[in-house]
Amino acid sequence: MSEHTVSPPDIVRCAYMEIVVTDLKKSREFYVDVLDLVVTYEDDEAVYLRSFEEFIHHNLILRKGPEAAVACFSYRVRSPEDLDKAVAFYEARGCEVRRNKDGFVRGIGDSVRVMDPLGFPYEFFYEVEHVERLCWRYELYTPGALVRLDHFNQVTPDVPAGVKYMEELGFRVTEDIQDEKGTVYAAWVRRKPTVHDTAMTGGDGPRMHHVAFATHEKHNIIAICDKMGALRMSDRIERGPGRHGVSNAYYLYLRDPDGHRVEIYTQDYWTGDPDNPRVTWDVHDNQRRDWWGTPVVPSWYTDASRVLDLDGNLVPLTERTDDSEMAQTIGADGFSYTRQDEDDMPEWKKGEYKLGHQL
Amino acid sequence: MSEHTVSPPDIVRCAYMEIVVTDLKKSREFYVDVLDLVVTYEDDEAVYLRSFEEFIHHNLILRKGPEAAVACFSYRVRSPEDLDKAVAFYEARGCEVRRNKDGFVRGIGDSVRVMDPLGFPYEFFYEVEHVERLCWRYELYTPGALVRLDHFNQVTPDVPAGVKYMEELGFRVTEDIQDEKGTVYAAWVRRKPTVHDTAMTGGDGPRMHHVAFATHEKHNIIAICDKMGALRMSDRIERGPGRHGVSNAYYLYLRDPDGHRVEIYTQDYWTGDPDNPRVTWDVHDNQRRDWWGTPVVPSWYTDASRVLDLDGNLVPLTERTDDSEMAQTIGADGFSYTRQDEDDMPEWKKGEYKLGHQL
Amino acid sequence: MSEHTVSPPDIVRCAYMEIVVTDLKKSREFYVDVLDLVVTYEDDEAVYLRSFEEFIHHNLILRKGPEAAVACFSYRVRSPEDLDKAVAFYEARGCEVRRNKDGFVRGIGDSVRVMDPLGFPYEFFYEVEHVERLCWRYELYTPGALVRLDHFNQVTPDVPAGVKYMEELGFRVTEDIQDEKGTVYAAWVRRKPTVHDTAMTGGDGPRMHHVAFATHEKHNIIAICDKMGALRMSDRIERGPGRHGVSNAYYLYLRDPDGHRVEIYTQDYWTGDPDNPRVTWDVHDNQRRDWWGTPVVPSWYTDASRVLDLDGNLVPLTERTDDSEMAQTIGADGFSYTRQDEDDMPEWKKGEYKLGHQL
Amino acid sequence: MSEHTVSPPDIVRCAYMEIVVTDLKKSREFYVDVLDLVVTYEDDEAVYLRSFEEFIHHNLILRKGPEAAVACFSYRVRSPEDLDKAVAFYEARGCEVRRNKDGFVRGIGDSVRVMDPLGFPYEFFYEVEHVERLCWRYELYTPGALVRLDHFNQVTPDVPAGVKYMEELGFRVTEDIQDEKGTVYAAWVRRKPTVHDTAMTGGDGPRMHHVAFATHEKHNIIAICDKMGALRMSDRIERGPGRHGVSNAYYLYLRDPDGHRVEIYTQDYWTGDPDNPRVTWDVHDNQRRDWWGTPVVPSWYTDASRVLDLDGNLVPLTERTDDSEMAQTIGADGFSYTRQDEDDMPEWKKGEYKLGHQL
Repeated sequence: MSEHTVSPPDIVRCAYMEIVVTDLKKSREFYVDVLDLVVTYEDDEAVYLRSFEEFIHHNLILRKGPEAAVACFSYRVRSPEDLDKAVAFYEARGCEVRRNKDGFVRGIGDSVRVMDPLGFPYEFFYEVEHVERLCWRYELYTPGALVRLDHFNQVTPDVPAGVKYMEELGFRVTEDIQDEKGTVYAAWVRRKPTVHDTAMTGGDGPRMHHVAFATHEKHNIIAICDKMGALRMSDRIERGPGRHGVSNAYYLYLRDPDGHRVEIYTQDYWTGDPDNPRVTWDVHDNQRRDWWGTPVVPSWYTDASRVLDLDGNLVPLTERTDDSEMAQTIGADGFSYTRQDEDDMPEWKKGEYKLGHQL
Repeated sequence: MSEHTVSPPDIVRCAYMEIVVTDLKKSREFYVDVLDLVVTYEDDEAVYLRSFEEFIHHNLILRKGPEAAVACFSYRVRSPEDLDKAVAFYEARGCEVRRNKDGFVRGIGDSVRVMDPLGFPYEFFYEVEHVERLCWRYELYTPGALVRLDHFNQVTPDVPAGVKYMEELGFRVTEDIQDEKGTVYAAWVRRKPTVHDTAMTGGDGPRMHHVAFATHEKHNIIAICDKMGALRMSDRIERGPGRHGVSNAYYLYLRDPDGHRVEIYTQDYWTGDPDNPRVTWDVHDNQRRDWWGTPVVPSWYTDASRVLDLDGNLVPLTERTDDSEMAQTIGADGFSYTRQDEDDMPEWKKGEYKLGHQL
Repeated sequence: MSEHTVSPPDIVRCAYMEIVVTDLKKSREFYVDVLDLVVTYEDDEAVYLRSFEEFIHHNLILRKGPEAAVACFSYRVRSPEDLDKAVAFYEARGCEVRRNKDGFVRGIGDSVRVMDPLGFPYEFFYEVEHVERLCWRYELYTPGALVRLDHFNQVTPDVPAGVKYMEELGFRVTEDIQDEKGTVYAAWVRRKPTVHDTAMTGGDGPRMHHVAFATHEKHNIIAICDKMGALRMSDRIERGPGRHGVSNAYYLYLRDPDGHRVEIYTQDYWTGDPDNPRVTWDVHDNQRRDWWGTPVVPSWYTDASRVLDLDGNLVPLTERTDDSEMAQTIGADGFSYTRQDEDDMPEWKKGEYKLGHQL
Repeated sequence: MSEHTVSPPDIVRCAYMEIVVTDLKKSREFYVDVLDLVVTYEDDEAVYLRSFEEFIHHNLILRKGPEAAVACFSYRVRSPEDLDKAVAFYEARGCEVRRNKDGFVRGIGDSVRVMDPLGFPYEFFYEVEHVERLCWRYELYTPGALVRLDHFNQVTPDVPAGVKYMEELGFRVTEDIQDEKGTVYAAWVRRKPTVHDTAMTGGDGPRMHHVAFATHEKHNIIAICDKMGALRMSDRIERGPGRHGVSNAYYLYLRDPDGHRVEIYTQDYWTGDPDNPRVTWDVHDNQRRDWWGTPVVPSWYTDASRVLDLDGNLVPLTERTDDSEMAQTIGADGFSYTRQDEDDMPEWKKGEYKLGHQL
C-alpha cells in the first residue's frame, strides 16, 4: 500500500519523553529537587516523572545509561485502533516498527515504537495507567511548579522534508521562520490546539533540541531562575527568560546535568481552528526568536542531544546543507534588523549581534 | 431518521454570543471602555467585539433591543459540511431549524440557527471573516486584557436531560456537582480541551447564566476589579475574585448594565484526552464553588438572562423541580461542610453560611 | 516632669508580636506548615518565627498558655538611649514601666515593657541578635512566602484619644475613616514610611485586631488561600483576598487556631515625606474597607484578641461609646453608597449590605 | 568651620532628576507614550513627569538642550531649615553653592543647588507643590505602570572617596562589590529604607549611570518589554529583565532616545534598621550583578551620561585608575565563577563570559 493512501493515527498530544542520563542521582536532583517534577515511580534504573496537572503515568522518564541521549518521543493516540494505523502508516514508509502489547515502559500498555523517516524514535500508545491529577493539591505546589508537558523540539537537516512528513502524520504548521529566498529555518507543528506538540529546527540531525514544560504564570519561571541562583546552578540557565516572537510565549531554557535542554514555557495561544492562520517570520527579524531582541546564545543553535535507535544505539547524524540560522543572523556574514528597511540600531547595541562568529 | 442515528456536527469551540442590550451606549462603555474588548465593527444598532488573541470576526455582539436577553449561543464547526449535519441533527429532534447562506450576522457566512431541545437559540457556522489577531500588539494591551472567549453557562431545569442532549451533540462531561441521592445540580461539558465550552446549571430555564472570557494571569482579573473600583462601578462586581473548586480556575463575576453576567476566568486544565477523568463534587462541599470557602452570593444562584427564540421573542421558562443548590447549601434548610464528617466550622464563620434564606 | 515636655523614643518600626496560644503544636502547624514562617528557635514553651527578609531574631513569638491573648506589641528603637526616653515618656504618663537588661524574651537584649495609656502591653528594644536574612535563599521560598512583618492593628474605644497618644509617641496619621459628624472610626499611624506600623480601630478595647505580614506580589496571597483550600482549612479564611480602599494594599485575613487574626498584605505606598497627605475616607463609602465593594463580614468587626498586662493577666475591656462602624454601614440602621449622591445600587446587590444586623 | 563639624541636611529621599534631551518630542514619546509616566506640566522647553504614587510635582524633568546630559540630581529634605544646613555643608567643603528662594524649576520652592565634591550637580529642596497621588486611579494604570522614583546611579572614578563623602552627607552603605585586594567597584547608599537612593559605580566620572523607577510586580516589567517589542523599539532594551544579586530586585535597563539609561526595578528589601547588615559581593562572582548569571553587556559598563555644572556646561571627566569591573570579569584578563573554588562551568556557557574584550 502506498504511503499516500494510509491514514495516520489520530494523535491527541505529545505525552512523554524518555531520556538517557549518565548519572541518575544527579539527574533526579535536577528534575525533582530543582524543577519539582513529581515522582510517579522510581527504582535504581529509572525515574518516572509527571507534571502537576497530569493524570497519565508520566511525562518524562530518566533512564540510566552509558551515554546521554533520547530514547523516545512518545505521543498519545485517541483509541486503541490508532495503533494499527500507526503500524500501517510507518510500514508503508518502510520504517522499522515494533509493537509491544505490554508496553515498552512502566505505566503504558500496548504501544508501537518506530524509527521514523527523519531518524527519530517515535512512540504511540493509548493504554495508560491513571494517577492522581494534582491540580487541587496546592499544599504540594512550589513557586516554579510545572503543570503540563507542552512540547518537544527536534533538530533535522531538511526542515521542509520534516514538515511534509509531519503533515502526513496529521500535524499542522502554526508558525515558521523563512528567508527571502524561501529557505525554511524552523517550523512549529501541532496536534493539540497550542502552537506546537513538536517543532522542526534546522540543523545536523536527528537530534533533540529540547523538551518543554508549561507553568501557569510568568513569575513561576522567574522563581525557577531565582532558585537556581540560590543553588549556585545559574550556569545551567542557557537562555532567557524572555518572550518568544514565535508562539508569543514567555520562555526559559535550562540544561540538565547531561546537557539535555529543557524549556519552561507559558502562555501561547489557541490554534485549534481548522483555518488557523500560519505566522511566518523573517529569519533576519531580531524579534522572531526573542521579542525583546535579546540575541540567541550560540550554544542554543549548536548544541542538541543525540537520539537512539530501537536497539539503543546512537543514530548517525546527517549534516544540514541549507543555510544556518545562526550564520544568517549573527556574526560577520549575517545581518538582522529590529525595524525592517531601517539601519539605525544604536551603536551600543550592535556589538551584541556581531559576536557569534568569534567563538 | 431517528435522532439516535444522526451524527452531530463536529464542533470546534464556543465562538461568540449575541446579546440584546437596552442601552447600546452604556453597554459599549462597559465592554469597551471598562473591559477593553476590541471593536471589530460597530454601527447604531450593534457593536461587534473580540478578544486580543481572536482571529475570527467577533466573540460577542451587543445588539440594541427593547428587552435584555440572549439572542444566540454560537459555535464554530470544523467544516462547511458540518452545517448539513447540524441541520439533520436538529431536524431529527423536531427542532426549529433555519439556515442562512449569508449568515445571520456580520462577519459570518453560511450558518444554521436552531431552537434546541432545551429551548436555547444555538448557532453553528464555519465560514467567518478573519481579522487581525492582536497577540503581539502589546502596545494595545491593558492591565485586564481579555484574550479568549472561554465558555458559556446555561440555566436549565433538568440537568441530566441537558447533559444527555449535549453528549449526543458530541460534548463530554468534565466535572459535575451532585448530592448523595444522585441529584445533579450542574455539569460542565466541553468540545475544546478545556473544562468547558458550556455548562448546564440547574434552575428555571432556559436562561443564560454567564459568558466567560479568559485572561492570561490572575493579576489581570484583579486589575479589572481595581479599575471598576476607580470608576465607582464596584456594585457591578457580583462575586469573586476567587478560586473555583470546579475547574480549578481563578474567577470573577460581573454584571453588565442590563444585568447580563460576565465571568473573567483563568487557568483551568487540559481535558483533551479521550479518557479524561470526570470530577464529581458533593453539593454540600463548601469548596466546590469556591475553593476558599467563600459563600456564593444569592443573586448568583437566582439571577440569569432570558433567551430569545429565532423570531426574537422571549422563550417561556420552565421551573426546576429538582432540589435547588442554593437551598441545599445556605439558609435554614441546607447544610454544608469544609471537612466531611466533621462539624467544627468556627463559630464566627457559621453566620456566613446561614444568610441565604433571610433575603 | 509633665508628659508634654518628655520626648518620645525614636521608634524605627514595629518589630514583633508575642501571642499566647492554647495548643502550641496546632499553632506551629498553622504558622510554620501552612504560612511558612521560618523558625529561628523553638522549645516546648514557645516558637520564635521570622519572615524571609528579616535579619532580627524574630517577628512573632507563639507562647503556650492557658488562654489565647496577646502578651506584647514590640517596636524597635533607633539607639540604646531611646530606651531611657521610653521609660521617661511612660513614667511621665503614670504608666507601669518595667525594664529588663537581659530582655524579656530570647534574642532581644535590654528592653522596656509598659502598660500604655490605652491598656496595651508595649515593648521597646534596640539590642537584638542578628540571624540570616533569607532574601537570596530562593530554594526555601514557598508560593506564599511572607517576607516582612508589616503592621499591627489595635482595637480601642476612643480612636481620637488613641491617635493623640500615638502622635505624642512620634507616629503620624496617614489615613482615617470618619463620618459627616466627625466621629472617627479608625486611624492608621506609621513610623516607617508605609501606611502604618499600627492602626487604631474603634471598638471595645484594649484588644488586638490583627498582625500583618507582607508578601511580594498578589499571587503569593492567592497561593496561601489555594493551599488552605487544599488542606481543607478554608474556614479559617475570614475575609478577602481583596483590595483595600484604605492603604490601597491587596489583603487577606486569616484566623489562627485560637482565633487570632493574621493579615497578609502587599503593595501599599510611600508615606515618608514630612508633609505626606492624609487620606480621610467616609464611613458610608462602600469602597473604603474594600475597594471592590465586597461587604466586610461581621466577625471582622466584632472579634479581636484580648491582651495581657505585664503580669500575664487579661486587661479588662472598656466599651466603645461612639458609633460602631458596622452599625453605620450594614444592617437596618446603616446606609452606605458606591457613588455618593446616587442611590442606584442594583437590586441584586442590595441584599449583601443588609445582613449584618440579622446575625 | 571645618567640614567635619558641619551636620548634613536631613535628606528624606531622592526626589527627581532633570535631564537634557536633544529632541523633546522624541523623548516625550519615550517617557510618556512608551513608559506611561504622567505629565504634570509641559511646554515647548520642558516636560515635567511623575510616577503613579507620587504626590510631589515631579520625578523627572525633560529639558530641551543642545547636548544630552544631566542637569541635576535632586533630593528632598525634611524641613526648610535643612537648606541652611545644605549650604553650610557644601560651603565648608569649598563647593560652589547657589540658592534660589523661588526654585530653579517649576513646582519647587526654595532650593539649593551645588557642584558636589565628586563633580555632580546636586539639589536639595523642601517646598514643593502637591499634585494628585494617582494610587487609586486604576482607570489610568497601564500594564507597565511606574509607581515610584526609586534611585539614581552615578559613575565616579574613586568609589571609596565617593562613599566617604556620601556617608558624611548622611547616607549609609547597604551593599558593595569588592575584590580580594580590597578594590571597591561599586557601592549602594541609602537615606530612605530601601537598598539605595543612589549608588557609586566605578568608572570615568562624573557621569550619570541611570535613573530608576519602581513597578509593583515583576509582570509589569515584562509588559514594558513586550510593548517595546510591539513598537519595534526592542533595540532600546539594553540589559535584562533579570534578577539582581545586589539588592535582590528584579530589573530592566532601557536607553532613551539620547542614550540616557533608565532602570525599571521592583522588590528590594527593608534596610531602615540602624544596624542593617551590609552585604559585600565578590567582583568575581557571576551572580553579583545578575543572580541568574547572565553576563552584563559591555555597553552597560562603558556608557553613561555626562553631567552639567550650574551654568549648564559639561563637567570634564576624570579617569578611573582603579581596576575596571568589566576587565575583572569578562574578556581575556578576567575570570569569574558561579561556584567559588570550582572551575566547572559547562563548556557551552564559557563563551558568553569571554566576549567583552573582543569588542
